[in-house]
Amino acid sequence: MENGMPKAEKILTLESMNQNVRKLEYAVRGPIVIRATELEKELQQGVKKSFTEVIKANIGDAHAMGQKPITFLRQVTALCLFPELLNDNKFPEDSKEKARRILQACSGQSIGAYSASQGIEVIRQDAAKFIERRDGGIPSNPDNIYLTTGASDGIVAMLKLLVAGQGKSRTGIMIPIPQYPLYSAAIAELDAVQVNYYLDEDNCWALDIKELRQSLYEARKHCNPKVLCIINPGNPTGQVQSRKCIEDVIRFAAEENLFLMADEVYQDNVYAKDCAFHSFKKVLFEMGPEYSSTLELASFHSVSKGFMGECGFRGGYMEVINMDPAVKQQLTKLVSVRLCSPVPGQAMMGIVVNPPQPGDPSYKQFNSEKLEVLNNLAEKAQMTEKIFSQSPGIHCNPVQGAMYSFPRIEIPPKAVEEAKAQDLAPDMLFCTKLLEETGICVVPGSGFGQREGTYHFRMTILPPTEKLKTLLQKLTEFHKKFVKEYS
Amino acid sequence: MENGMPKAEKILTLESMNQNVRKLEYAVRGPIVIRATELEKELQQGVKKSFTEVIKANIGDAHAMGQKPITFLRQVTALCLFPELLNDNKFPEDSKEKARRILQACSGQSIGAYSASQGIEVIRQDAAKFIERRDGGIPSNPDNIYLTTGASDGIVAMLKLLVAGQGKSRTGIMIPIPQYPLYSAAIAELDAVQVNYYLDEDNCWALDIKELRQSLYEARKHCNPKVLCIINPGNPTGQVQSRKCIEDVIRFAAEENLFLMADEVYQDNVYAKDCAFHSFKKVLFEMGPEYSSTLELASFHSVSKGFMGECGFRGGYMEVINMDPAVKQQLTKLVSVRLCSPVPGQAMMGIVVNPPQPGDPSYKQFNSEKLEVLNNLAEKAQMTEKIFSQSPGIHCNPVQGAMYSFPRIEIPPKAVEEAKAQDLAPDMLFCTKLLEETGICVVPGSGFGQREGTYHFRMTILPPTEKLKTLLQKLTEFHKKFVKEYS
Repeated sequence: MENGMPKAEKILTLESMNQNVRKLEYAVRGPIVIRATELEKELQQGVKKSFTEVIKANIGDAHAMGQKPITFLRQVTALCLFPELLNDNKFPEDSKEKARRILQACSGQSIGAYSASQGIEVIRQDAAKFIERRDGGIPSNPDNIYLTTGASDGIVAMLKLLVAGQGKSRTGIMIPIPQYPLYSAAIAELDAVQVNYYLDEDNCWALDIKELRQSLYEARKHCNPKVLCIINPGNPTGQVQSRKCIEDVIRFAAEENLFLMADEVYQDNVYAKDCAFHSFKKVLFEMGPEYSSTLELASFHSVSKGFMGECGFRGGYMEVINMDPAVKQQLTKLVSVRLCSPVPGQAMMGIVVNPPQPGDPSYKQFNSEKLEVLNNLAEKAQMTEKIFSQSPGIHCNPVQGAMYSFPRIEIPPKAVEEAKAQDLAPDMLFCTKLLEETGICVVPGSGFGQREGTYHFRMTILPPTEKLKTLLQKLTEFHKKFVKEYS
Repeated sequence: MENGMPKAEKILTLESMNQNVRKLEYAVRGPIVIRATELEKELQQGVKKSFTEVIKANIGDAHAMGQKPITFLRQVTALCLFPELLNDNKFPEDSKEKARRILQACSGQSIGAYSASQGIEVIRQDAAKFIERRDGGIPSNPDNIYLTTGASDGIVAMLKLLVAGQGKSRTGIMIPIPQYPLYSAAIAELDAVQVNYYLDEDNCWALDIKELRQSLYEARKHCNPKVLCIINPGNPTGQVQSRKCIEDVIRFAAEENLFLMADEVYQDNVYAKDCAFHSFKKVLFEMGPEYSSTLELASFHSVSKGFMGECGFRGGYMEVINMDPAVKQQLTKLVSVRLCSPVPGQAMMGIVVNPPQPGDPSYKQFNSEKLEVLNNLAEKAQMTEKIFSQSPGIHCNPVQGAMYSFPRIEIPPKAVEEAKAQDLAPDMLFCTKLLEETGICVVPGSGFGQREGTYHFRMTILPPTEKLKTLLQKLTEFHKKFVKEYS
């Protein structure tokens, strides 16, 4: 500020800022969603549109789409927040027991105290027991469990720990394409090398080991690939991996010396009759000590998905297997800088891993609410696939699990040209026009990655059944019109 | 895994991991606290010690030290979590109104839905009004406010945005010494350059502009210092900056083209009669448009400190002033990758910035609970200073604010030698012996930074009055003994 003149330029500008942050993208909350929010505001202000409501099918946010919270989860967390309610006879006895158990594990018996950085010990013990039940008795050690701020936080912490080197020895991280863009964003932020492996759309988005191998060998020419990320059930694909596929991946990772990261946040969301969820940990241990004593694995879970949909609580856990104890200390140190994950989210996770059992006063209601959510999602998964597959120009694989469909759509060459002229991805052009005309907000496939020359969008199956049906019909009709307009 | 032989080495080792993570340190939860937790477990298991209780005075965790939550804060958040309670006549009407206001601003009216990445809009509006009231009417724009996962999260996000360049153009970040080690840890993680400026212990830990200038000019020889971090009231020093000091800092930052980060989480924690909290924003705007129209400032607040002490909720906000709108978009994109800060923490922040007003049914109780906490802290701040200053070999500045004392202690040369032999900082040796002998856990000054050859520790003033008194007596006696032993 020479001579008292105002500065010409700011200190923090697009040019001076962290360029890794600048280049990262996160489509799930990208420009199209920002526009959707603007449209919502315009509607509220009485601006006339060709639609009366914006439907945000862009994000796996169940409660936002009207799904009701599971009563028991909220009873226990409310009791933890306001323990005076422990004297209230409107709350069932087992909800009080759970709340007392959690509060006794909190410093000063308050959910407002920091927890240990790794998370409340009792909840980590319960999570270990939950994993053991899930995996048919394979042991789980609470010391290997970290409670996290949603799964995202755990995934980013693990990636942060793994990234090292410069130039050709820079860490390469293998991710599926299409992927959930948290991965590409974190990789950009950490300035690591993103190594893509393509899922096989013609085979229900299955993982193909040959493709994995080819991608790895190619990547080795320019970086040091040492992490393999798997999302199962798949986001955005909705694919559920077979047991055989998981075995093949584990064998591959062991042979090629890769650290495995298994994003298993949709483990409760399996709908197809011929599919089942197999955890990477269970398969690993069933393959015998040759694998289970050496393969390094981190797996992630969350309270945001499943039947809970409690995204706002930002609760989750990760379990690390075969991690060098000295590195685990470093991980604990790293997470301690942020002190701890939110304790209400930890409590929520604590109830999810230790739910009411048969005979408990809340069991019946808890279970029926849980099944209602999951059955409803299964029905909507089927309906989505059915309506899309009846529509010419749209190809949709079965939604075997998770909360999304990721259909491939025809985009005529003329529309591709127009998109190019506007400097937009062609599926961004489609999604933008769809939003402006119908109020339906879905995310372009280009935000998740797709094979060159193919176009997709991701849509959640979360809106209420009747609304989803209307939405699917409007969307397919709009696509027909779009194709016609550009033909 | 050639020939089926087990791998000799893990993929993720101390050598192969991210070396920036490896070198970071966070003393507040470092080795001494890990040892304190072990001792607690040993006591629980019935192991005999020379003490019956471990007192963790290492961290500003009020509820862990027995401080009771403010009733109104918990009533409203419990109502948000379990809205059925809105029909319960045990909850005061104004707590219900606040809860309804927050719920109506949540997607699907559920606290379990994701919020906008920047935070719930109504809460950001309330935060803006809170800041305006605090700053005597200086306007605050909700668009400049980001709700964060505690203050730590906001501070790290801002630093992340600011760090760029390589070699001599690498971003330098000026931090006070002693500092709160979140700063040094984040700087190490981001591989930025830490630029120390020493606070003046002989002048009540005041900030000295000459020292600031000298440090800046020195740093310019080897990096690009562009951020100045201030902690006021000070952590760990307990110092409260005068209005004149803040003006000088602003003038300095403007002249030298520095981005200002003001950590103001202890703004409610001012105890000394001749001190008052002045926000950087208020002083900036009162200095006129020459400064207020250009200086780039980010200021941070939290629900963890003040009279609330709700650390477990991980709630906070930051306000950014004069930030380039294009960079603000980048900041919003960056925070959107983690989706949103925990919504229960946002709700808690929402109540703190919009508390009961005179005439509201809860006003009287809210206010008396708040004053009780703050008066009690003021009393303990005074007691701490008094007991320490009566003890030879201990020098303690007045605890004007925040939640800590940071006394300088005499460590005899023989003890320094022994520490060297054990590869320990001398004050680490002192704190370790103190812990093992008395069960008192405080953090060595070396974890915060101090002038070469001086030794300190940080201790919270949070234990209940009588317990704190005993603790102070035990600690000063132990120090006497320690000095004698090594003389």
